[in-house]
Amino acid sequence: MHSQADKFVIYNTLTRKKETFTPAHSPHAGLYVCGPTVYSSPHLGHARGAITYDVLFRYLKHLGYHVRYVRNITDVGHLEDEVEGAGEDRIQKRARIERLEPMELVQQNINRYNESMRLLNVLPPGIEPHASGHIIEQQQLAQKILDSGYGYVVNGSVYFDVMKYNRDYQYGKLSGRKVEDLMSNTRQLEGQQEKKSPLDFALWKKASPEHLMHWPSPWSEGFPGWHIECSAMSMKYLGENFDIHGGGMDLLFPHHECEIAQTVAAQGRESVRYWMHNNMITIKGQKMARSLNNFITLDELFSGSNPLLQKAYNPMAVRFFILLAHYRSTLDFSNEALQSAEKGLSRLMKAVNVLHNIHSSDKSTVDISKLEGDCYAAVNDDMNTPVMISHLFEGVKIINSVKEGKEKLSGSDIEKLKELYTLFINEILGLEEEKKEQKGIVTEKLIDDLLELRIKAKQRNDFETADRIRLILKEAGVIVRDKKDGFEWEFE
Amino acid sequence: MHSQADKFVIYNTLTRKKETFTPAHSPHAGLYVCGPTVYSSPHLGHARGAITYDVLFRYLKHLGYHVRYVRNITDVGHLEDEVEGAGEDRIQKRARIERLEPMELVQQNINRYNESMRLLNVLPPGIEPHASGHIIEQQQLAQKILDSGYGYVVNGSVYFDVMKYNRDYQYGKLSGRKVEDLMSNTRQLEGQQEKKSPLDFALWKKASPEHLMHWPSPWSEGFPGWHIECSAMSMKYLGENFDIHGGGMDLLFPHHECEIAQTVAAQGRESVRYWMHNNMITIKGQKMARSLNNFITLDELFSGSNPLLQKAYNPMAVRFFILLAHYRSTLDFSNEALQSAEKGLSRLMKAVNVLHNIHSSDKSTVDISKLEGDCYAAVNDDMNTPVMISHLFEGVKIINSVKEGKEKLSGSDIEKLKELYTLFINEILGLEEEKKEQKGIVTEKLIDDLLELRIKAKQRNDFETADRIRLILKEAGVIVRDKKDGFEWEFE
Repeated sequence: MHSQADKFVIYNTLTRKKETFTPAHSPHAGLYVCGPTVYSSPHLGHARGAITYDVLFRYLKHLGYHVRYVRNITDVGHLEDEVEGAGEDRIQKRARIERLEPMELVQQNINRYNESMRLLNVLPPGIEPHASGHIIEQQQLAQKILDSGYGYVVNGSVYFDVMKYNRDYQYGKLSGRKVEDLMSNTRQLEGQQEKKSPLDFALWKKASPEHLMHWPSPWSEGFPGWHIECSAMSMKYLGENFDIHGGGMDLLFPHHECEIAQTVAAQGRESVRYWMHNNMITIKGQKMARSLNNFITLDELFSGSNPLLQKAYNPMAVRFFILLAHYRSTLDFSNEALQSAEKGLSRLMKAVNVLHNIHSSDKSTVDISKLEGDCYAAVNDDMNTPVMISHLFEGVKIINSVKEGKEKLSGSDIEKLKELYTLFINEILGLEEEKKEQKGIVTEKLIDDLLELRIKAKQRNDFETADRIRLILKEAGVIVRDKKDGFEWEFE
Repeated sequence: MHSQADKFVIYNTLTRKKETFTPAHSPHAGLYVCGPTVYSSPHLGHARGAITYDVLFRYLKHLGYHVRYVRNITDVGHLEDEVEGAGEDRIQKRARIERLEPMELVQQNINRYNESMRLLNVLPPGIEPHASGHIIEQQQLAQKILDSGYGYVVNGSVYFDVMKYNRDYQYGKLSGRKVEDLMSNTRQLEGQQEKKSPLDFALWKKASPEHLMHWPSPWSEGFPGWHIECSAMSMKYLGENFDIHGGGMDLLFPHHECEIAQTVAAQGRESVRYWMHNNMITIKGQKMARSLNNFITLDELFSGSNPLLQKAYNPMAVRFFILLAHYRSTLDFSNEALQSAEKGLSRLMKAVNVLHNIHSSDKSTVDISKLEGDCYAAVNDDMNTPVMISHLFEGVKIINSVKEGKEKLSGSDIEKLKELYTLFINEILGLEEEKKEQKGIVTEKLIDDLLELRIKAKQRNDFETADRIRLILKEAGVIVRDKKDGFEWEFE
């Protein structure tokens, strides 16, 4: 295990405190994260969640843990009104509009999500279970809750009895809400009358005739409630007591609150040891939301095709933009902020390039020993990436001073800095040099231009320049062959 | 619908004849293909199957069909001995060796498979259902078969009664095998005694205590047989009567034979209208197989890291190599054959580049009108890609003759040729220019070399050359700034 392992502290939403991370079964660490409901294209909010837990995943691995990272895919049961658990299934509704089989819509959006994650350099989780692929496990958990007396069956649907649970345990401990306050804020919706209390939520819903996605069950032909998938799948793959459960702050209530209630009702105690929540992305201070029409998908961000965007943004700039805020703070989108992130990342990456080309001196005139400790201290402090990045920029100043001859670095200090930047920039923050696909390609035009320059040099008998051009092209992988009536070239 | 749609003919393994393709519900077309058992890295054989049906998928879409393309992922139930249906589950065995949760192993290999498919430019299917995600559907189908009298339960396992089925229908019609011949070739395996006949196969298997992947069922805690997943998932997503079922020839018996038996037993008639089978990849005439240690994974192929390989091969060269053989012929792997494919593809792509740069004449001296018809005729004839490619090379000869001034092409003929090449090379065969990632990048070295050449030019007062170099670099996206003590550059 890495020497920093016992210094890593994370904020536990449940205890409202920063706590040292100590896994239940070290060196193993279990991580479950709520993934996307795949009814539409992934957007900037999806990127924030995925990147937050990607950094956590990377850092836990760096610390020496064997991490089992599970991120689910919600492809059934997430209804339009998620607080009341009412309305049409989101997947089904969109599939109906787009005239697709629901699973075709699901696959399309999974493919889009995976492609965006690849571009954002988000490592794939170890397991990506689908809700629709774990119907039996969800039914088994619902049955356990029925057996323990915290669920009831009405008209083929199974509901969780929040009032009864609240008498024996405390409902609302994660979000800090009280059942009495919640009750005074609920409205009685049409079709919800079969529930004993408006706070009760479905573990299994009987399917109406127009519902496309349904399976047999002991209670009815139906489909699982939204909350039960995460309880069922996290326990299936990580056990009844696992380390970290993460997700967006918008899932804290009711989704995660209900997960806790389900688990406690089924097995008498909680399964999650640390709850983590990343904050939202806002735009001009307002929550980014489809309904407010201030929504930017990742595809749009990477291509610039949204009226809110002044230009296309490179995925690495987007990743850096997200890492420039602490994951528990809101992050406001603006073109200015993204462009500033873009410039900052470019300055950082250039300094790393400079670092690989500067000359060493016998002795260093600056002290770089503090830098490593500062970077570790920042990431250990509840993954404080903005502070870590500010330390990395202190190093940039040093590098540039050395380049300009104002300071000196010894060979061993240069090596140390290189290792440090590789570790924190590439391995932990997951930032890579911008892909060269978009720029810096030897186009045929460049080659033709250079060959024309070569002809002109020959014409004025400047054979040295002509030969030199041929050699330069050769070293760039372009073979030039002189022929009677000109020349031809090809890539090696 | 495209005018070629009623000319498309495919070989139906079931009737052993080439038949005109007429979908059951035009303009919709349903396609189900047996995908990988994800217990190991994808290999050259996986590429052949995927590319074969990718060309089919692309061509059906080009013809104007709305194609629902389902390719499954087998992540449970595929046992080591697939003919006898005995031995350990392949996923579980490998997971045990690698000390992974079975679904971690599954996810790893799905990710590898998807990445390889992306590199090979294989379009993602519309739905990629997992066997483990359709346990209920498989149980429902097993129950239907029990209800219709063609299955029986022994010790918690459900078996298909081949003998009874063979009396009422004909078992073996796809593979042309007869039950009597099959019987004389079977050996009685240990632990198989609970089957009435050695030809019977499992629809559901009771799990032994050491078996990790198991689900509750009306018969036992267990797992589905291998064959039933494809029957259950194809009918779920494509209906009880769909157009094409494809797969590798190694799946013809027993897998596809058993699928037919299951479907007929459950619903009284077959569901598949056209059965298609792609042939195998051999190496020195021998089947490529893990057991023979002559196996090449796609990762190895793309990186050159296998002693059987003389070099790394570009994914597009691998795709072209596969398309150079008709899908129903065996294809022998050799370094020579792959390198020859690589050269051929490069020649084809260069000609397309030339085509985009040749000057038009008033009149054409060659007739290109036949080319389009020839290409369509080839693909319409049971996807004869090698013949189609040979026609494309006839066009290459024309293009090169025009380039050399021996022949002439009118502007409209040039446009026609461009469209034809885009359609057949890019859209239907799915070939793209080699990714520029590996070669042709403006390296810093190239830029530094050119800037050094520029300094030398300045030093000898050749300002024309110096300026010209700066301009050439600018057009390639490199900004050069002169400074007092030299210069600096950056990408635009």
